[in-house]
Amino acid sequence: MRAVVIHGPREIRVDEVADAALIEPTDAVIEVKAACVCGSDLWPYRGLEDVNAGAQMGHEYVGVVKEIGDDVRQVKVGDWVVGSFVASCGQCEVCQAGYESGCTNRVFMGSVGTQAELARIPLADGTLVTLPAAPNDDQLRHVLAASDVLGTGWFGAVAAEAGPGKTVAVVGDGAVGLSAVLAAKQLGAEHIIVSSRHASRQELARKFGATDILEERGEAFAEKVKALTGGYGAHSTVEAVGSDEAMQQALKSTRRGGHVGFVGVSHGVSIEGIKLFGALVHLHGGPAPVRRFLPELVDLIYSGAITPGDVFDLTLPLADAPRAYEAMDQREAVKVMLTS
Amino acid sequence: MRAVVIHGPREIRVDEVADAALIEPTDAVIEVKAACVCGSDLWPYRGLEDVNAGAQMGHEYVGVVKEIGDDVRQVKVGDWVVGSFVASCGQCEVCQAGYESGCTNRVFMGSVGTQAELARIPLADGTLVTLPAAPNDDQLRHVLAASDVLGTGWFGAVAAEAGPGKTVAVVGDGAVGLSAVLAAKQLGAEHIIVSSRHASRQELARKFGATDILEERGEAFAEKVKALTGGYGAHSTVEAVGSDEAMQQALKSTRRGGHVGFVGVSHGVSIEGIKLFGALVHLHGGPAPVRRFLPELVDLIYSGAITPGDVFDLTLPLADAPRAYEAMDQREAVKVMLTS
Repeated sequence: MRAVVIHGPREIRVDEVADAALIEPTDAVIEVKAACVCGSDLWPYRGLEDVNAGAQMGHEYVGVVKEIGDDVRQVKVGDWVVGSFVASCGQCEVCQAGYESGCTNRVFMGSVGTQAELARIPLADGTLVTLPAAPNDDQLRHVLAASDVLGTGWFGAVAAEAGPGKTVAVVGDGAVGLSAVLAAKQLGAEHIIVSSRHASRQELARKFGATDILEERGEAFAEKVKALTGGYGAHSTVEAVGSDEAMQQALKSTRRGGHVGFVGVSHGVSIEGIKLFGALVHLHGGPAPVRRFLPELVDLIYSGAITPGDVFDLTLPLADAPRAYEAMDQREAVKVMLTS
Repeated sequence: MRAVVIHGPREIRVDEVADAALIEPTDAVIEVKAACVCGSDLWPYRGLEDVNAGAQMGHEYVGVVKEIGDDVRQVKVGDWVVGSFVASCGQCEVCQAGYESGCTNRVFMGSVGTQAELARIPLADGTLVTLPAAPNDDQLRHVLAASDVLGTGWFGAVAAEAGPGKTVAVVGDGAVGLSAVLAAKQLGAEHIIVSSRHASRQELARKFGATDILEERGEAFAEKVKALTGGYGAHSTVEAVGSDEAMQQALKSTRRGGHVGFVGVSHGVSIEGIKLFGALVHLHGGPAPVRRFLPELVDLIYSGAITPGDVFDLTLPLADAPRAYEAMDQREAVKVMLTS
């Protein structure tokens, strides 16, 4: 089968590799109908993380079940399925508490690789969600977004306790930040303030439900958020970048007693205890338990209530994966979809 | 009136000062019937914080209202009252959300001083809770504990979401940690694991509801907690020390998706973002909104359900305040009550 393989920084190739196959009786193998490139794929691409030369890439996927292991009960061959970037058992106490991304038996899909014609899905019963019907092109795009960025932005908004009557601030206008805006809107937030300097992203933020767009960053952003909230600060803030500056901006933008949800993979973030003590906020985040939200997200997509796939502004065939990485790296695209 | 005044490191004296008096129409003046020395009073005492020479000390108090300002409506002269270490308006959005310690108009009682015969209580209506009846000696001790240590430990347990079916770990066996044990028990926790190496504190921890006492610290403590919880870690952990070691111990002891409540005033605590991201816990803490819990705590005390005043292992008259500080400093006492 063909699969995207990294050979070194900026050396992304579509190689012929051995077909994905069942290993454990709890595995499924799917035909990948759509995958995509994630912001986190850019860390090794840019040489900012160690490159595991020869490793397959990708952790987002929508597909059709091709084969199932002997112990798989919940999905069957021919089903259209989506799963999150973490395969999870669904049985352990952490899964049962809704933290599938922290599953005791978890497998990060990035270690398997889904930018390929076929992909092995470990723990298929706990991981995969069956779609109500074969998706049309639009639904395919939207469901693919749910596999990671939407689910991650959604978790950010839930972790920040976005809800009716709340003012939600979102730090970051990437695919995850924009998804957090959509989530906050769906969760009933009254005001949604986004930090963005890019016209096209501002436009999508407004479409997803943003009420205020601020070009300020850092302290200046926090001051503006306070001015918009009677001096208090946001009830809920989503940090969707992962930098130290973004985390500090999020903490400062939030009122005492408020909630900060952080979903940007932390790079160089350090939080002083005494500042967090004084801020008196709730802080919660990490790898999003997307699996918890997938059934609801699929329903919202199939009912037409949300269009999260709007974050994809470029679609390329799997064969053009090198170009997809380049477009993301050069910020020509917010998010690229790869089709089979 | 007589009041405890700090003149320099280890220079605590009981001085004759001007009587506390009304300043704002929202003030009350109370006769302080009981006050106490707090662990946080030891920071300036030990010269580890700048000493404001000539400043009055103390922020915990139970008393009888002696005088009220023109705008005070909720308390009247002669009422027995208790309040928290933060005076709060009760009206702003932060107070209304139950975060009175973050009140927009807050006054830290430490800046006023309650180790004295009289004390001015700012924002009396928002701050003071009237007791159902004049307390007997036991009730006085218990209600005094509610003014800070019990309320703070309670907040730690609430922030950690201690509750039925949960395993709660408590890092710290001081008055606040012990109060967190009592709170976790009241909140219905199933298992309560405490980190303690002191026989007398272990005994009180057991009396308050601890099911397991561990002498281990740091990683070793966390490993033991995991071994006691099927490998998962505690659902809820209360950090009641404020040191970096204690915070790391708390984070490591908690399962993914779990909750850490931190109420130790942070000294030198630094949290790496990527570790917090990986831990996938909820982290919440700061100066406890004790006022939120006071009515319920007073009810529990008057009904005889809890005996938080057991943390006081030494009682001295106000005149012996220098001895009280010394006993706390030398760890001869967990917590000293000062009587009028």
